[in-house]
Amino acid sequence: MKSDHIPSATIQRLAVYVQVLGWMQRDQVKVVSSEALAKACDVNPSQIRKDLAYFGEFGVRGVGYYVEDLITSIKRSLGVDRVWRTALVGVGNLGRALLNHKEFKARGFHIVGAYDCDPFKIGEVISGLEVMCTKTLSDWVKELDIEIGIITTPPERAQRAANHLIESGVKGILNFAPARITAPENVFVEYVDFFHQLYSLAFSITLAGQ
Amino acid sequence: MKSDHIPSATIQRLAVYVQVLGWMQRDQVKVVSSEALAKACDVNPSQIRKDLAYFGEFGVRGVGYYVEDLITSIKRSLGVDRVWRTALVGVGNLGRALLNHKEFKARGFHIVGAYDCDPFKIGEVISGLEVMCTKTLSDWVKELDIEIGIITTPPERAQRAANHLIESGVKGILNFAPARITAPENVFVEYVDFFHQLYSLAFSITLAGQ
Repeated sequence: MKSDHIPSATIQRLAVYVQVLGWMQRDQVKVVSSEALAKACDVNPSQIRKDLAYFGEFGVRGVGYYVEDLITSIKRSLGVDRVWRTALVGVGNLGRALLNHKEFKARGFHIVGAYDCDPFKIGEVISGLEVMCTKTLSDWVKELDIEIGIITTPPERAQRAANHLIESGVKGILNFAPARITAPENVFVEYVDFFHQLYSLAFSITLAGQ
Repeated sequence: MKSDHIPSATIQRLAVYVQVLGWMQRDQVKVVSSEALAKACDVNPSQIRKDLAYFGEFGVRGVGYYVEDLITSIKRSLGVDRVWRTALVGVGNLGRALLNHKEFKARGFHIVGAYDCDPFKIGEVISGLEVMCTKTLSDWVKELDIEIGIITTPPERAQRAANHLIESGVKGILNFAPARITAPENVFVEYVDFFHQLYSLAFSITLAGQ
């Protein structure tokens, strides 16, 4: 890798590139120009070239990028060409949906533990996983080599779930609960908030109608 | 409003500001400086001032922004201070989770119709809504004044669901299915893809460990 420090905005965009390139691959696209990739990703072509330059030279002059090679290179460079073991905390409706979601395994994120503090849920088996008590998390994180925690609790329990995950030693948290989480600097936190996109839609529709 | 054309990147950021300001409001924060708001939103303060300038002058010199007023102003300016009626297509695990998700109503997005093409699901009642046949969508979109469609089908059925929604006259689509959708220019499409955030987490953890 050319540089140690990659800005977080670049990382966000790289995640989008991988995603869009994956769609192209499913559609049997072999080669893509930086212009076409830029359009599909909704960024400008010079931005894509700049972002990819962090990892060396991928493009072929006059041809563009080989889709499969580019996906492989980005994933390898950034460490998502391997399996990530994750634990899910909060077995409500959304938690169950994620446990049954086939894309996690397909994309290399294996949910290997499901946790809840509700005694009526503990012991239940969902998608082959037995729900365990959240208090036992720290034993399992070590035992199962879990690096990422997924929070799908109600908002008022999100911080407590995060605390359990942090104390257990996870390195990153994906939070679906509509609540802000406090974590030490060495634990990365990402939020999934689909109201963000719903607001964007409502904004766009409103502006278009004016 | 000062300007007709607001860049889509600004709209994306405004959605984040509203979200973060909402968290501050829940924490009883009354006033916030542009610096503190910028930090919480992970953008720089001059960006926030520039974005908010599209809608006039919100800040009070030497004080900052009044949280409640700012939320109200942004929402009013952009049309999310009212109820948006939505239809959900695809009553699988994720669809069920969203139908039971309390935040939708709380944030003004009312799911008033649930649709599926599986005869075993049609007629089932989930969270007070009877699942209807997707083929009847166009009647319901008019009858129920639905403006936004939410797609939670498997990826291979996403485009068909989108086609039904587009033909029915919705103005925007929120797509949870991991598949690209084609829509005419006057129909806005937003994607929820949590692998984007999972990739970001994996990237950050990998880079931190190097």
